[in-house]
Amino acid sequence: MATHHTEITHREGLAFDAQLQNHNLRLDADSSVGGQDYGPTPKALMLTSLAGCTGMDVASILAKMQMPYASFKVEVEGDLSKEHPRVYTAIRVRYLFTGDALDRAKIEKAVKLSQEKYCGVSAMLRQIADLSYEVVLNP
Amino acid sequence: MATHHTEITHREGLAFDAQLQNHNLRLDADSSVGGQDYGPTPKALMLTSLAGCTGMDVASILAKMQMPYASFKVEVEGDLSKEHPRVYTAIRVRYLFTGDALDRAKIEKAVKLSQEKYCGVSAMLRQIADLSYEVVLNP
Repeated sequence: MATHHTEITHREGLAFDAQLQNHNLRLDADSSVGGQDYGPTPKALMLTSLAGCTGMDVASILAKMQMPYASFKVEVEGDLSKEHPRVYTAIRVRYLFTGDALDRAKIEKAVKLSQEKYCGVSAMLRQIADLSYEVVLNP
Repeated sequence: MATHHTEITHREGLAFDAQLQNHNLRLDADSSVGGQDYGPTPKALMLTSLAGCTGMDVASILAKMQMPYASFKVEVEGDLSKEHPRVYTAIRVRYLFTGDALDRAKIEKAVKLSQEKYCGVSAMLRQIADLSYEVVLNP
């Protein structure tokens, strides 16, 4: 069984240094809740985790399909509940591509494979929030 | 209603640059799945998100309680399912403190407040995995 490990070490105020795999990352809260904005906030990292998980799937699948693009972005928005604990109630994922030879059918197939088969973060977050997604070509 | 926004931009291979709030972070896969390990993997970021969320709660509550410590770490382990999509099935959180004047009752109260009341990431991940936690003093 594979196990992932991460740890964070408290620095000052609400700032922590995270170690995950061989990489380091500083986390902090923003000033509205007593932090100093030395790094991203933890909750938003969940959305980055989702974007990265599905983005890597799609990049990998499109490379195998030999589907070229000029640029590829993934945007994720998450709506927070009002009450504590504040959780994401709705999450919207947008896959944005630019390029001269974009094939919508191939791109939608790659996105669907990620969302329905491969992306573990999507599978997890779909259990806790209303997760929707769309593909946007040459916006 | 508050909404969080994040986006990632594809760079090369499986590497993406993430922007969240005013911060940047490079994500990548490791070489076993075709990446180049330029940054942390997306899924492990979920565990870092959890560590940071509850760590900041506990640091904040202990500051209000005036409970001093020499060091404070949060370790998180997540066991992955074997089948795709690979999701965390069990998550273990350890709060590790060192110090001469640690008050276990206060620390456990702070941890419990975070886990049961304030930490949105814990509340979300508890819905999808078996989430457990423990407090370790002067290991």
